Parts: sequence; structure tokens; C-alpha cells
Amino acid sequence: MASGMAITLDELVRRFGGEVVGEGAYRVEGLAPLDKAGPAQLAFLANQKYLPQVESTRAGAVLISRADLDKLTAPREGSNFIVTPNPYAYFARVAQAFIELSAPKAKPGVHPSAYVDPAAKVAASAVIGPHATVEAGAVVGERARLDAGVSIGAGVTLGDDVHLYPNVTVYHGCRLGARVIVHAGAVIGADGFGFAPDFVGEGDARTGSWVKIPQVGAVQIGDDAEIGANTTIDRGAMADTVIEECVKIDNLVQIGHNCRIGAYTVIAGCAGIAGSTNIGKHCMIGGAVGIAGHVTLADYVIVTAQSGVSKSLTKPGMYTSAFPAVSHADWNKSAALVRNLDKLRDRIKALETALADKKNGEA
Amino acid sequence: MASGMAITLDELVRRFGGEVVGEGAYRVEGLAPLDKAGPAQLAFLANQKYLPQVESTRAGAVLISRADLDKLTAPREGSNFIVTPNPYAYFARVAQAFIELSAPKAKPGVHPSAYVDPAAKVAASAVIGPHATVEAGAVVGERARLDAGVSIGAGVTLGDDVHLYPNVTVYHGCRLGARVIVHAGAVIGADGFGFAPDFVGEGDARTGSWVKIPQVGAVQIGDDAEIGANTTIDRGAMADTVIEECVKIDNLVQIGHNCRIGAYTVIAGCAGIAGSTNIGKHCMIGGAVGIAGHVTLADYVIVTAQSGVSKSLTKPGMYTSAFPAVSHADWNKSAALVRNLDKLRDRIKALETALADKKNGEA
Amino acid sequence: MASGMAITLDELVRRFGGEVVGEGAYRVEGLAPLDKAGPAQLAFLANQKYLPQVESTRAGAVLISRADLDKLTAPREGSNFIVTPNPYAYFARVAQAFIELSAPKAKPGVHPSAYVDPAAKVAASAVIGPHATVEAGAVVGERARLDAGVSIGAGVTLGDDVHLYPNVTVYHGCRLGARVIVHAGAVIGADGFGFAPDFVGEGDARTGSWVKIPQVGAVQIGDDAEIGANTTIDRGAMADTVIEECVKIDNLVQIGHNCRIGAYTVIAGCAGIAGSTNIGKHCMIGGAVGIAGHVTLADYVIVTAQSGVSKSLTKPGMYTSAFPAVSHADWNKSAALVRNLDKLRDRIKALETALADKKNGEA
Repeated sequence: MASGMAITLDELVRRFGGEVVGEGAYRVEGLAPLDKAGPAQLAFLANQKYLPQVESTRAGAVLISRADLDKLTAPREGSNFIVTPNPYAYFARVAQAFIELSAPKAKPGVHPSAYVDPAAKVAASAVIGPHATVEAGAVVGERARLDAGVSIGAGVTLGDDVHLYPNVTVYHGCRLGARVIVHAGAVIGADGFGFAPDFVGEGDARTGSWVKIPQVGAVQIGDDAEIGANTTIDRGAMADTVIEECVKIDNLVQIGHNCRIGAYTVIAGCAGIAGSTNIGKHCMIGGAVGIAGHVTLADYVIVTAQSGVSKSLTKPGMYTSAFPAVSHADWNKSAALVRNLDKLRDRIKALETALADKKNGEA
Repeated sequence: MASGMAITLDELVRRFGGEVVGEGAYRVEGLAPLDKAGPAQLAFLANQKYLPQVESTRAGAVLISRADLDKLTAPREGSNFIVTPNPYAYFARVAQAFIELSAPKAKPGVHPSAYVDPAAKVAASAVIGPHATVEAGAVVGERARLDAGVSIGAGVTLGDDVHLYPNVTVYHGCRLGARVIVHAGAVIGADGFGFAPDFVGEGDARTGSWVKIPQVGAVQIGDDAEIGANTTIDRGAMADTVIEECVKIDNLVQIGHNCRIGAYTVIAGCAGIAGSTNIGKHCMIGGAVGIAGHVTLADYVIVTAQSGVSKSLTKPGMYTSAFPAVSHADWNKSAALVRNLDKLRDRIKALETALADKKNGEA
Repeated sequence: MASGMAITLDELVRRFGGEVVGEGAYRVEGLAPLDKAGPAQLAFLANQKYLPQVESTRAGAVLISRADLDKLTAPREGSNFIVTPNPYAYFARVAQAFIELSAPKAKPGVHPSAYVDPAAKVAASAVIGPHATVEAGAVVGERARLDAGVSIGAGVTLGDDVHLYPNVTVYHGCRLGARVIVHAGAVIGADGFGFAPDFVGEGDARTGSWVKIPQVGAVQIGDDAEIGANTTIDRGAMADTVIEECVKIDNLVQIGHNCRIGAYTVIAGCAGIAGSTNIGKHCMIGGAVGIAGHVTLADYVIVTAQSGVSKSLTKPGMYTSAFPAVSHADWNKSAALVRNLDKLRDRIKALETALADKKNGEA
């Protein structure tokens, strides 16, 4: 990454904290991994196993923790460091700053091809992209950015500095907090999946239908949340579906109606959460995890990838139910035995009986 | 939910059936759960466990079955009821009616920013939203509603009262029946996944390519079906993919080419159904279920969430293959034992042999 | 399939290879399966079990391998054949040709409702559909086709003959090779899922936040790849995510940042591949498979549907970890035994001890 802009280590420390060890006036122009960085780049050490690379790197400066700095035996002469308790987060913040310096700013205003209803209220500093639609009663905050083809329903509220990527759809009445990012194709506020069965009779004689239950809640998304591409978050049936602040949701995730996802929880791609489920704060939900409806997960629950949660998990900790793939032949052997576990158990029981009989017979 | 409109219990019974017990002239303005409803609201009892709430509710009236009404020991004085065999479905119908009363009607016509090919035929009562596209030969029925950014391919037929939410794509030649609802971002009629292998040689010496098999069927969707957000239903290879009437499909579901989904079947979110599979009527497919290609499911089959179906299921009933998550440590213990089940079985066999030898030896 | 155009068998052989057995001047107008084809149609035999149908088919001609032709005992009088080593791939190529003959050609040019930035470079032979957006610096190749609502970010490169279906989004800087097909709603180049934890304290006292890691890589897609509807492929964090040539990806698949998918690999619907994973060439990834991040799969690996891969698979071959659904009651029995496998093992151990004690006692 090269931004074309240079910044001194002193300036970085002024903006992001930490302490310079070395030359504060040294200038860097971008970021790179330890093994690829050159003299104009800043690298970082976040994982002990790369400690030796710090001694050989050509990076102009390295973000490092005090403890790791103290472990260095032979830093290169003239090495520069910024010492910080969390080099990885520091790196992320500096990287954001370089991008802001280098990225072209979109011009505020409504693209001529966009449609904004006269009864919508769009901040003058917002950017409304080509072919975007903003319906009546919607409110778009300061510096919000709506990319091409975004569709904002009636009465939606978008906070300041929201960024909606192309072809995002937000249904009527939903509310997104400040700095929320929603990636392309995501759908916020579609109808929850609710139908009342109204059938009589059995089998071929069954008649009747499913009656749609109107979904009159909406979706609330807290400040600093990020929603992945093509993810879907359904509106509530009567009350709202709630995504709290700083929740991070990956691509192709489904969140059912009336769920609540606690603050700072992260949900990896392809996970599915059925309706009315309540997930605590600071949880980590792995990829392709399925969580049943109407259950509650405590704060700090971790569910590993591809596991299924069918009941409430009331204690923090790590939960699992997935098998790792093995060779097809080996798996088939195990799978057949699993299907016949009751027979293995019966054979054990028979052995126990036989042995007890023998003992009794001998007694 | 409050609509601002009031309606008498007599009027509800006139429109939706049932029988008033109490004051027929009583007016309600909206719906609410038993524990939250006030005197201007209608509540419903669909689940026995909430029976005590009927005696304490402040609701102006309650939808209830005859059997449950007879169980009440101390209904509040002046309580009003509408007696109906299916209070939940009745509630759903009343809720729909309140929404129709209160929701602003979209004005018929084509939005100036939409593109409708001159060779398409759009009913005068239809609503074509901003930035929608309707290609040549498409037919759009009475009162159909196409929201912002919807794309309708050449020769598509959309029935009366269809509602396509923003950014839905319907590929050329597909046909949707009356009252079909498709939520935002869904894709109807993309090419099925079909490629003929045309390779020679093995390993690093392999040459050749995958040859695309043109997908010249389409997708047919029956009346009253509902399709969830970002769901994908592929067009057939030679014949059509068919979704029968009143099928309800949730978000992020994949239906492969040439499948047939029987009437009234419901499919929950994140399920995937491979090509040429035939699912019966009145089935219930749980969330994240995977169903292999070229299999058949009988009518009235239920597959529980996250299960995998690899063979035909010829009898109605409930099928499962998912494990619920347990603590990671416990799971790892079980998983290791599963991988070594053949060793446990061998130990049982050895015990059986040893015991038989002993018996023979003693005989 | 009927195209309205007729072509002789000799002409087919001239274009696609093979050898006519029968009348080279015979004309066919379309393709159909053996059991449905009439005298104006070409059928094919790709599977031994349909050999008897070749003797009874009414097809005007049949694509067949030399080996299968030799097995025919009583072909109908006047039967025509084209002999080819791979009838299925031949069929696919002929079907493509018929479609090209019969499909109306889209007119080159930019639709009046599309927005193309003056600083983008679009080939004159390209077709830019209604409401499409092409941002500054993008390059669109010869005969490329961008359907309605497609959004192309700044600096994107699209090769010749690319076809992007409606509402596809390609983020800035991504590069698609020649003849790449992307189906509706797919999202190429959204931010990878990367956040640095910056929290202090435990439990309710935890404070801090997730810091977004800028994703400054892009996505590269090789020639002849095909990407399914609503599939998402994330851009890399520092380096690019790479999809090599002729990779075929089905609908609703998630590919994480910095993955590399080897040439000719096919990935079925609903699969999810976490970040920084490296999949070899000629692999086959089944539907709904989950693959962990930072693992490597060798060339020619096959993972069966719904399996989970948590470690590298260094040898070609087939891998599995999914159970097929059985009746719910049977499954629950097995599942309970699995959860208690350690108890079964302990009972076996107790039996072994008891038997050994007996032997020792008797010795």
C-alpha cells in the first residue's frame, strides 16, 4: 500500500498514541507486512512467531508492544519503532488514515440520475449515487454515502457517515445508526418469515392455505455496525429486530425477525439465525453456524464454524457440533457404525449380562 | 400496531367469519399481543399456555377458539370475544386488513426514471418504480408492483397483484402467478449450474475445459407463492424449474435447476436444494437443510434444521441428521470416539470371542 | 429446443469435429433428449443406461461414442449418427451454437438511462444496459454486456465478451478476464471481514471496539470463469483474492478475502470458504461445504456436500463429514449414544478388566 503521502512517526504518535523509539522525524508513506516492507513503509508485529522478522525487516519503522521490543536481541542499526500495547489495532487505524489521505473524495450532492422523493430529507453533505432511490419521509445524515442503485424505503433513517454500497435495499421504516457500513446487495428489513397455517383435512384431502402474518416491526442497527454483502436482516413481526452497536456481520448471513444481536458480537459468513433469538454481547458466531429460533445465547459465547445451536446457551464458553472431513471411505465406516450404535450398545449389554451370569453361576 | 382506523367486531365477523361473544358494536383500531393490548386493540389466543393472560388482558377483544373460551373460569367483566376455529389465521387476516386500510397506496403508473421497452405490456393499474427495467415482450399484470431497481427480462410474465421488492431480478421467459411476492435481491431464473467435462489426460498433464450447457428452460412460480430476500431459483436446463402454488420460501435459499417444489411446502432460510429434485406438497424444510440432486421427497415430509438429505424420502414423517452444539471440550471427546468407532467395535468383538472361548473351554 | 434454423450434420462436423455415420446432408433444427426428440432434432447418448433408447428414438440424429455405436444391435433403419469421443460436451457446444443462431442480438451501445463516467473507457461493441453505472477509470472490453442495474466501480477492468447479469456489483479495482459470466446479484470485491480487537477489561467491564482493517487488495477473476447468482467474493486485505481461469462457482457461495481458487475447480451452491484459503486446481467442492480459513487443498480434491474442512487436505481424493438424514426418532437414539460414547467405552474397558481378572484368577 502506497498513498503518495508521507507522515512522520511523531505525527502518528500525536494522532494515535504510543511512543517513538528511534527517530521521530522519520517519514513513512504506507504500510506493508514485515517481510515485504521497505524503508518508506511501516510494518507491525502482532504475532510472536514473526519476532525474528523484526530483526531482518527493511521496514522504515515497526509497530510493536513494549514486551516484544524488550525481547529483541539484535535490532538492525537505525531501526525505528512505535511502541503501543496493541500493534494490530494501531496498524488498522493508521491504514484507515492513509486511505483517507489518498482516496478521492466523492463530491457531495445527488447524482442527476438518482431519484429522491421531495418528501425525503437528505443532508447537503451526503453523496447520493447514480440510480439510487430515496423514498418519502426518509432522512439521510451528514456525509452519508449511498452508492449506485441503493434503494431506501419510506421513512428510513440513516445516521451520519453511513456508507451503503451498490444495490443495497433498506425497507421502509428501518433505522441505521452513525457510521454503519452495509455492503452491496444486502437487504435490511424484508418481511420476516411468518405464516399462519389455515388448513383442514389430512393427506390428499387437505384444503386451506398459509395466511401471511404482516410484519409491522422494523430493523434497528446501532452505531458502527458493519453488514456484509448479500446478507439479509428481516424486519420484526410486531416489535423490531435489533442489531446493537459495533456488531460485525459477514456476507450471506441470515438474521430472522425479532432477533437481538448484542453489541460487539461478530458473525461470520453463511451463518443463519432463526427468528426471535437473542444473542449476547461480545459473542463470536462462526461461519455457517445455524442457530434455532427463540433461544438465548449468553454474553461471550463462541460457536465454532458449521455447528448447530438448538437450545439456549446460558454460560460463556466455546460450543461445537461439527465434524471435520476425513477420507470418504473412513467416514462411511464411522457413519455406518454411528447409525448402528444401539446394536453396539446391545452387544455390550449382552456381554455384561453373560459375565454377570458366569459370576453368579460360579458363586 | 395502530392504524388510526376503527372497525367494529360485527364488521370483522361479516368480513372474516366467526361469532361475537360480547358487544358486536365494540370498535378496535389495531392488534397487539395479549399482555400488551389496550382497550382499543384486538388480541388473540393461539397457544394454550397463554390462557391465563386472557383473564388478565386489557385488550378490547380477544380472538379465541370455542374450546379455549369454554376453559375460561374468570373472564374480566365486559370482555369481548370473536370465536373462531383458528384464531392465529384470523389474526393474520385482520392484521392484513388493518395494513391495507392504513398504508399509503402507491400511485399506478410508470415512474419517469424507469425503463419499459415499447414491446412490453404493462397493465395501467400496475406500479413501476424508479430505475426499474421491463424488457421487450414482458407482460405485467393488473395492480402488479415493481419496486426500485427491479429488472424484468424479455418475455417474462407477471400475474396480477404480484409484488417485487427492490432490486429483484427475473431472467427472460420466467412466469410468476398471481399475488406472488418476491423480496429484495432475489434472483429468479439464473442459469442452472451445468457444465460438460471435456478433459483429457491426468494430473498436471490434464488439458481441456468445462463446456457450458445452455439452460433453455425457465422458472414457473405458482399463485400465492412468496420468495425471500436474496434467494436464488435457477432456470431449468431443458424443461422448467417449477415452484407450485402457495409455496413459501425464506431468505438466502438456493433452488437448483429443474427442481419441482410441491404446493404449500415451506422452506426456511439458508436451505439449498440441488438440481432435478422433486419435493412433495405440504413439506417443511428446515433452515440450512441441504438436499441432494435427483432425489424425491414424498408429500408431508419434514426435514429438521441443518440436516442433509442424500436419498429419496418416500414416506411422510420427520427426518434429521444434525447434532446440537455442546461444549467444545465435550464435543471433541465424542468426535474422537466417533472417528475410532471401528476400534471400539473390534474390542467388543474380541470380548465376545474371549467369552465364547471360555464357554467352549469349560464345556 | 427449436431454433427455427436448420443445419446439416456435415456442417456440424465441420465446426465441432466428429464423423457422420449416415446421411451427412441430413438437417437438424434443435436438440432434445433421446426419448423426446423427433426427426428434426439431434439427441445424444452420454450414459450407458440409455443405450436401449438409441434403438427406439425418433431423433433425426444421435451424438454417440464409437464404443457405444458398436454396441448397438438393432439401430433403426435410416438412423444418423455423429461419432465423437465426448457426446455430452459435443451436445453442449451444439446447443450453444443453436442459441447463438436464434437469440436476438443486443444492440451495441450505452442505454440512455445508464450512467458512464466520462473517465471510463467502454468498447464501442459493448452493450451497457438500462440503469447500469460505470465509474471513472473503468475499462469495458469488446462485446462485453452489462445488464440492467449493474454497478462497476472505479478502475475496474472487464475483459472482452464478459457478461454481467442484472444488479451485479463489482467494487473498485477488480479485474475480470475474457468471457467471464457473473449472474445477477453477485458481489465481487466487497471488503473482506477483518477487524482488529481493541478491547480492555473482562466481562461487563470490557471497553473498547473492533477496528476495521482496510481491505486494499482487489479481486482477480481469470478467463472463462462463471460466478453464480448472489455469490460474494471478497477483495483481499493487502494482496488480491484470485479466482483462476475456468473456475465455475454456483449461487450463494461465499469466498473470503485472499483466497486463491485453482483453475477448473467447481464449487456448488451455498458453499463457504473462509479467508486466505488456497484451493487447488480441478477440485470439486460440494454444495454447502464449509472450508476454514488459512488451509490448503491439493489439486483434485473432492469434498462431498455439507462436509466441513478444518485442516489442509494434502492428497487428492474424496473427503466427507456429513451424515444423511434418517427418521427423527432413529437419529435421536444415535445422537444420544454419540454424546455418551465415553460411557460405552468405559463399559467396554470394565468388561476387558473383568475378563482379564478372571483369567488371572483362574491361572
